[in-house]
Amino acid sequence: MGRWKPDARGRLEQAALELYAELGFERTTVKDIARRAELTERTFFRHFTDKREVLFPASQPLEAGLVAAVREIPAGQEPLETLMAALRTLPGALADRRELARRRSAIVAATPVLQERELAKMASLTDALARELRERGVAELPAQLAAESAAAVFRTAFTRWIAPDEAPAELGVLLDRSLAELQHVVAAG
Amino acid sequence: MGRWKPDARGRLEQAALELYAELGFERTTVKDIARRAELTERTFFRHFTDKREVLFPASQPLEAGLVAAVREIPAGQEPLETLMAALRTLPGALADRRELARRRSAIVAATPVLQERELAKMASLTDALARELRERGVAELPAQLAAESAAAVFRTAFTRWIAPDEAPAELGVLLDRSLAELQHVVAAG
Repeated sequence: MGRWKPDARGRLEQAALELYAELGFERTTVKDIARRAELTERTFFRHFTDKREVLFPASQPLEAGLVAAVREIPAGQEPLETLMAALRTLPGALADRRELARRRSAIVAATPVLQERELAKMASLTDALARELRERGVAELPAQLAAESAAAVFRTAFTRWIAPDEAPAELGVLLDRSLAELQHVVAAG
Repeated sequence: MGRWKPDARGRLEQAALELYAELGFERTTVKDIARRAELTERTFFRHFTDKREVLFPASQPLEAGLVAAVREIPAGQEPLETLMAALRTLPGALADRRELARRRSAIVAATPVLQERELAKMASLTDALARELRERGVAELPAQLAAESAAAVFRTAFTRWIAPDEAPAELGVLLDRSLAELQHVVAAG
């Protein structure tokens, strides 16, 4: 077993994603993950509560990152402008996680209990964005609709970004494309 | 125990909603529901697989109703127009279910496992609407974004329609108000 190394968390994440793809999420054990990462089970449990948390960190980095980004956006902008400005900080943050995100997404799509967790995560993210807008003085209905619109733009862009058959396109370009398409679709409603 | 009556399903639904509100969903049994409705447990199981199905019918009447409505809309309209036309058939179908919907919503909001089920139901509805649009020849991205927009309009309007402190407003009026607000929010994004 390896000694502690600075990238233990990353190695565990990598090993877990490989094994979930090979054996399926349900059949993979923490023991398997630790062995593949050449670390101990104890090290695993220093970083994650259980094997689901590898895919859904309790700290919710996406939600926390977007909320922090919203708080950096100067006041006085329109609600969806504010959220789009926050979303545009993501491509930098996610740039080197595309392959991990692609693998993670395939595992979630193949496992119903994880799909439910993913829906709950997106609902929590949408609620958090609507709350941030309300705290900036936006009324309830536009806050909710701007948050749902931003979530739809993010989800469609992210899905294309990690599509296995997609020629690589930048996430930032895909976000702008989804927003433009949403504006077209909604204006014609 | 009462004999079979034409409204057995409605009485069971009513009794279940009362008991879920009084005892909580988890603590209510099928026996309790049958007793309150003055029917037998056997009658309950002729109408519902289990106590969750009272709140989430396997047949998904909302999704089936909307898909059927989309298929009635003449071709050649814009994607979100098509879905809004389908949504506007709902107020008639739901008119006398407002109080039931209000109670159901309070129970779902109080029970995490039911909230997850509700998210899955809405995701399935959104997917079904996007699929209908694709079958009408709409490309994938606008189909997905129109379906997500329609779902957001429906959800915000429905939430206001059943809000306990809301002065009664027609669901049709609330749908139009949500669409107008969405158009305003998205155009300014």
